[in-house]
Amino acid sequence: MIPNLVTVMDKPVLDLEKTLIDATSVVERWFRMAWQDYTPPFYCSVDLRNAGFKLAPVDTNLFPGGFNNLAADMLPLAVQAAMSAIEKYCPEAKNLLLIPENHTRNTHYLASVSRLMEILRQTGLDIRLGTLSDQVTHPASMTMPDGTTVALEPVKRINNGRRVGLDGFNPCTILLNNDLSAGTPEILQDVYEQNLFPPLHAGWTVRRKSNHFAAYDDVVRRFSRTVGIDPWLVNPYFAHCRDINFEEKSGGECLAEQVNAVLGRIRRKYREYGIKKKPFVIIKADAGTYGMGVMTVSDAKEVLSLNRRQRNKMAVIKDGQVVREVLVQEGVHSLERVNDAVAEPVVYMIDRYVVGGFYRVNASRDIDENLNAPGAEFVPLPFSQQHTLPDVSAAPGTSEPNRYYMYGVIARLALLAASVELEKTDPDMQ
Amino acid sequence: MIPNLVTVMDKPVLDLEKTLIDATSVVERWFRMAWQDYTPPFYCSVDLRNAGFKLAPVDTNLFPGGFNNLAADMLPLAVQAAMSAIEKYCPEAKNLLLIPENHTRNTHYLASVSRLMEILRQTGLDIRLGTLSDQVTHPASMTMPDGTTVALEPVKRINNGRRVGLDGFNPCTILLNNDLSAGTPEILQDVYEQNLFPPLHAGWTVRRKSNHFAAYDDVVRRFSRTVGIDPWLVNPYFAHCRDINFEEKSGGECLAEQVNAVLGRIRRKYREYGIKKKPFVIIKADAGTYGMGVMTVSDAKEVLSLNRRQRNKMAVIKDGQVVREVLVQEGVHSLERVNDAVAEPVVYMIDRYVVGGFYRVNASRDIDENLNAPGAEFVPLPFSQQHTLPDVSAAPGTSEPNRYYMYGVIARLALLAASVELEKTDPDMQ
Repeated sequence: MIPNLVTVMDKPVLDLEKTLIDATSVVERWFRMAWQDYTPPFYCSVDLRNAGFKLAPVDTNLFPGGFNNLAADMLPLAVQAAMSAIEKYCPEAKNLLLIPENHTRNTHYLASVSRLMEILRQTGLDIRLGTLSDQVTHPASMTMPDGTTVALEPVKRINNGRRVGLDGFNPCTILLNNDLSAGTPEILQDVYEQNLFPPLHAGWTVRRKSNHFAAYDDVVRRFSRTVGIDPWLVNPYFAHCRDINFEEKSGGECLAEQVNAVLGRIRRKYREYGIKKKPFVIIKADAGTYGMGVMTVSDAKEVLSLNRRQRNKMAVIKDGQVVREVLVQEGVHSLERVNDAVAEPVVYMIDRYVVGGFYRVNASRDIDENLNAPGAEFVPLPFSQQHTLPDVSAAPGTSEPNRYYMYGVIARLALLAASVELEKTDPDMQ
Repeated sequence: MIPNLVTVMDKPVLDLEKTLIDATSVVERWFRMAWQDYTPPFYCSVDLRNAGFKLAPVDTNLFPGGFNNLAADMLPLAVQAAMSAIEKYCPEAKNLLLIPENHTRNTHYLASVSRLMEILRQTGLDIRLGTLSDQVTHPASMTMPDGTTVALEPVKRINNGRRVGLDGFNPCTILLNNDLSAGTPEILQDVYEQNLFPPLHAGWTVRRKSNHFAAYDDVVRRFSRTVGIDPWLVNPYFAHCRDINFEEKSGGECLAEQVNAVLGRIRRKYREYGIKKKPFVIIKADAGTYGMGVMTVSDAKEVLSLNRRQRNKMAVIKDGQVVREVLVQEGVHSLERVNDAVAEPVVYMIDRYVVGGFYRVNASRDIDENLNAPGAEFVPLPFSQQHTLPDVSAAPGTSEPNRYYMYGVIARLALLAASVELEKTDPDMQ
C-alpha cells in the first residue's frame, strides 16, 4: 500500500485491467515467445502515465539511475534477474566493469550506483567502476552516500588495445550506466572480445525516441491483436520533426503542423471514448534525457510564438547537446496522486523481468506536465506484485496487485520495443 | 524478523557465516559454473539443522509440498524462477499437467497444490491436475481450502499412446508432485515426447537417500576446497545398511556396526572442536518420506533391543512401502527455537534459485529428534534475504540476511547434489 495514493481509473483502463488479468497466461506466453526472437536489454526503466482512460509509456530509459529508489525487500528479484542475464552472456564471468555518468558529485546518483553494484556483486561478480571522464587520470577514491569509499579508475584499452578494462582488471562484461549524451567515446569503439551493454548505439548520440516509439507501435499492434484491445489505450500517438533550430527560430512550421496533426488524432479518439479532457502534446528532444528539453503544448500556435526563455530551454540539453530533432508525443494526463501531488509510476526491469518500481511524485507540477523536474520525489513500490498472484476475482480497480500487474505488462511492452529498436538500429546489421 | 526466534551459534558456524559472506562472489561464481555442468531439478526443498557448531542438510525433497507455508510477498521470486525453468525446457509451452499426491483430503497439502498452481499459472501456462489414483475414473471436482473448485482428472495416454495427458489436454510438461512411493506407474513409463519432472527415478521406488548423500559428499568436498572450510561443518556423516527386516529382526548386526562406526567418527570430530554435546545418529528408511520410519539412537545397543512398537514403526512407511534399506545419518542438534519450541529451517528452491523457506517448529520434540512429525507448525521466512545484500560489515551472528544467505548456500549445495545424484542414477545413462 502506498500511503495516500489515489488512482482514478475510468472504464477503458478498468476494462484493460480486466482483460489483462483474465488473459494472464496468454500474456505471459506471448512474452515468452517474443523473448525467443529478441534479446532484452540488460536493464531498462519505463515511465508510465495513467490517465484513467489510457495507460501508456512515455519514456524508456536504457541507462537507468534510481536503483536506490526501489524497495529494499524486492532486491532479491533484481539479483535473480541479473543472475539470469549474466549467465546468458558470460557464464564464466568473474569481472564486470561498470561505467557510470561523470557527474559523480550527485549523491542521489551515487546512491543508485552503489545499489546497482551491490545487486551485481551478489550475482558473483567482482565489480569495479571505470570512468570516461578526462578529469580522472589516476584512480580516485569516491565516498558513497553510505560512507563507504569506492575507487573510480580511468577506463583503458588493455591486452594490446584489444580489450577495455582498468589497470589490473580485465572484465568479461562492460555495463554502461552512462548514456553517452556527450558523444560516443573512442575508447569504447571496436570492442569485439567483450560484452558491452547496452550497445553504443543505445547512447543518446545515436538513439532516437522516434525510433523507439515506432518500434513500440509495432509491438503494441501485435500484442493488441492477441489480447483484443484498442492499441491506442496503451500507446501515445507521436510525430517527429527534423531540422529544428530553436535559437534561430527555424523549423517551427513543421513543428506546428505535426502538433496540429497529433492533436487532431487525439481529439478523434477523445470523441470516440467520450473523454471530456483537453488534449495536449509533449514536445521533447528526440535524443536526450533527464527531463530536459520538454514542453507541454495544447495549441499549435504556441510553438510559433515561443519566447526567448522557452526557446533556450528547448535548444540545449544535457552535456551541451544541441536539439535538432524533436518528438511530438500525445500527452497522457497523470491521474495518480500521492499526498495530492501528481505521481507517475516508473517500472524497472533487468533482463526480461520486472524487478521493482517507484512513483515519481512532483508537488509543483500539474497533471499534464513532465514530472522529471526539480521538486521530484520518489516513493518505492512493491512492483513485483505484478507477478504475485493477481486476484482474478477482484473487481477491476480494487486490487493493487492487479494494477501493478497491468503496469508491469505495459512496461514490458516498452522493453520489448527497446529490443526491437536496438536490433533495427544496430549499425553492424545495416 | 521471526518473532521469538532464538538461534544459538558457536564459533564454527559463526566462522562459516563470515567465510561465506566474505567469499560471496566466489561462492556465486562457483554455483554459476556448476550449473553449466549440471541441470537443477525443477524444484526442491531442503531441511537444514543448525547445531550452532555445525549447519547441515538432513533431507532433500524432490517433490516438495508446503508451498503454502512460504511468505506471500516472496512469491514473485518463485514465479521468476519458474519462468526461467519453463523457458529453458519448453519455451513454447502452453499446457502443464501437474500430478499431485493421491491424499487429496489433506487440506494442508491441497493448499500447497493450490499455491503451486498459482505460481505456475503466473508463468503463462494453463495448468490442469491429473491424478494417478485408481479411484478417480472421471473428472472430479475438488474444493480447495480457499473455496475455489479445481477439476481432478484421470491421467491418460493420448496421441495413440505416445503422450501423457488428460481428455482434451495435451501438455508439453508433466510436473510430478507425487513422490511415487507406491511404485512407478506404468502410465508414466516410456514418455519420450514430453518433459517429465522430476524424472521417474527420483521417485521413492527407485531413489535412495544414501545416493543423495554420497553425491553431497562429493559436492561439498569440491566446495570446501574452494572456500577453505572443513567439509564436516556442513556435512553429516552417514552409512548405509541393506537387507534389513525389522519385522523379522534381521540385519540388526549390520545396523549396530554402522551406528557404532558413525558415532565413533562423530566423537572424534566433537573432540577436535571441543564439543561437549552427546553424539547421536538418526536411523531412517533409505527410501521414503513424510518423516516416517525415523529413529534417534545414541548407542548401538539400542538397535539390537528394539521393542515391537519401535520395529513396527520402522518396518512400513508411506503407501505401505516395506523398509529394507536404512540410512544411518549423523544426528545434527537443532539449536534454533521459536517460542521455546525446537525449529529447523526448510529452504525452497525452483530451478537454481532459492525462492523462500520457513521454520518447521515442533513443540513436542527435542533438539535431537525429527521434527517432521505430528505437532509440527510452520513459520514463513524471508529466505529470499539470502540474496538481499548481505551486510559484509556485520559481526557474524548479528545479521539475519547473512544467516539466511548461509542457509541458502548450504541448501543450494544439497540442490546441486540432487542434480549429480539424478544424473548418476539415471537408468538411461547406465
